[in-house]
Amino acid sequence: MRNDSMRQSMRFTEPPAVAGFGCVAGKKEREGPLYDSFDLTGEDTRFGEPTWEKAETKMQQLALQTALNKAAMTKQELSLAFSGDLLNQCIGSSFCLRGEGIPALGLYGACSTMAEGLLLAAMSVAGGFAGSAAALSSSHFAASERQYRFPLGYGGQRAPTAQWTVTGAGCAILRPGRGRVYVRAATVGSIVDLGINDTGNMGAAMAPAAVDTITAHFRELDRKPEDYDRIVTGDLGAVGAQIVRSDLEREGFAPGGRYDDCGLMIYDRHTQDVHAGGSGCGCSAVVLCGRLLRQMEAGEIRNLLFCGTGALFSPVSSSQGETIPGVCHAVWLSTERE
Amino acid sequence: MRNDSMRQSMRFTEPPAVAGFGCVAGKKEREGPLYDSFDLTGEDTRFGEPTWEKAETKMQQLALQTALNKAAMTKQELSLAFSGDLLNQCIGSSFCLRGEGIPALGLYGACSTMAEGLLLAAMSVAGGFAGSAAALSSSHFAASERQYRFPLGYGGQRAPTAQWTVTGAGCAILRPGRGRVYVRAATVGSIVDLGINDTGNMGAAMAPAAVDTITAHFRELDRKPEDYDRIVTGDLGAVGAQIVRSDLEREGFAPGGRYDDCGLMIYDRHTQDVHAGGSGCGCSAVVLCGRLLRQMEAGEIRNLLFCGTGALFSPVSSSQGETIPGVCHAVWLSTERE
Repeated sequence: MRNDSMRQSMRFTEPPAVAGFGCVAGKKEREGPLYDSFDLTGEDTRFGEPTWEKAETKMQQLALQTALNKAAMTKQELSLAFSGDLLNQCIGSSFCLRGEGIPALGLYGACSTMAEGLLLAAMSVAGGFAGSAAALSSSHFAASERQYRFPLGYGGQRAPTAQWTVTGAGCAILRPGRGRVYVRAATVGSIVDLGINDTGNMGAAMAPAAVDTITAHFRELDRKPEDYDRIVTGDLGAVGAQIVRSDLEREGFAPGGRYDDCGLMIYDRHTQDVHAGGSGCGCSAVVLCGRLLRQMEAGEIRNLLFCGTGALFSPVSSSQGETIPGVCHAVWLSTERE
Repeated sequence: MRNDSMRQSMRFTEPPAVAGFGCVAGKKEREGPLYDSFDLTGEDTRFGEPTWEKAETKMQQLALQTALNKAAMTKQELSLAFSGDLLNQCIGSSFCLRGEGIPALGLYGACSTMAEGLLLAAMSVAGGFAGSAAALSSSHFAASERQYRFPLGYGGQRAPTAQWTVTGAGCAILRPGRGRVYVRAATVGSIVDLGINDTGNMGAAMAPAAVDTITAHFRELDRKPEDYDRIVTGDLGAVGAQIVRSDLEREGFAPGGRYDDCGLMIYDRHTQDVHAGGSGCGCSAVVLCGRLLRQMEAGEIRNLLFCGTGALFSPVSSSQGETIPGVCHAVWLSTERE
């Protein structure tokens, strides 16, 4: 499964199959270009709950149930769930799985969580450690703004480089055997910090980590951009995606038209006033567990390099003068088993 | 490695070995009964850093370097690190690994993080996905108090059931092959909530999860308390440990004198004014990566069931009226490979 030249990467000799996937999104997301790729959307941002944090938990529960339904599985049949979110102490995820009797491992990877969960779920299933495993993640615009920035009512100005946290949750369930989409390989990223300290420019903070992981993926697994129909980063937005594109070209891995970013796909930047694009754990989660996996099942994408990107800071670290480290984990999804 | 009756548990047919371990603790911890089991201790709670959060990062760095030294490994030779802590957005962990070039996966398991990291590191190595893997976790009394409770200067009264967050960090590194201690099996816990809403009584909130996981471990792996020299929970303290002891007796798994709790081991409750005992991610991390693994290497403990326990709440969830869910993951460590 690995050789000595593969420090960060792993290839799955028994690739787990995607048994089911589901996603839930908010009102703003369904007004965007991916409106027809969501399983469920809300009329507002509350999903019937009294608080935004509880709404985030509710979205995760709906995404998990949708993925289980598509996989024709019950909660009792799910062996393991990896989940995480952006809320302090990941309460969106913990409360989702409370009392469900599902073995649960919590993650914190900021907006890279969907990719982190997917690669850990793939390891668990491919290694024979779990009969099935889910990756689950979410974010909520209003809960994130309150926690990271300002109260919404304050009406703080947003910089042109700022991004809009996606309200949504996504879930993918893996199991052994045959399916329409497989997890073939993954590359775990290390934490990279080139000194960006502007919390209104997360894309630039995360881009170096994305370049680091994607080039490691190509080198360690002896692959190239042309081996993929799509290479998609998580939530770099317009600023970060441009850095990744030009850095990959400089490194000899020009991605060309096959490169895109979930943060650029999810909103119409011309009409939706989201500045540099979408962000948040939910961004890559709903784009993967909506548009991208649907396109793979339809045969429109055969090989996808899904690269979750996260900014590993907090309001406390920023107020203590720290810069913003980034991380990126890459997962190769394919319609072919080998 | 698993059969259909093992939903939560996994047995490692190629058990990874503990290559090295290290721990760092604060001033109060070195005044306690485990004073001679720490690799490094601080004169104060700052470790030369300007803030408590940066001190927590520093402790993680020192614990990681100590474990690497004992394993005779460099950072460049480490293939994977799992780490997490209690700080919002786990900044203690993210900043520890920033710029180190070590493939990094972030965890949030509250005080169960050391056990969660250890079982994921074992899966990664046993499954052939990583050439070596570290589990790393920490907590800091002053940073935790400020974040979860009150500013220290406020001098808030503590309930008799309250616990004292350990200032410390622990790290264990696993790799394939031979060693003096092996990870033989693990049981992943699910999230259990019996309705405790008193944030000053975390032990009672976590105890039901510990009982749930420990009994699942015995049942799924067909083991019994007598198979272990020691069964040690993470940080239940006096209240939670008493619940676990009596619940295990009722379930037919009376642990007798082999049961203990890291939260009870780390301080002298009669002289150190810690009320119900120690807590925090650092509590089980420094007791495992100090006293317990040292005793295993010395042959004083041959089989240990290490059960990390976590309370998955936040000040926001509590203020929104939620109760406190708990989780527990169990790891079987043994001096025998099979």
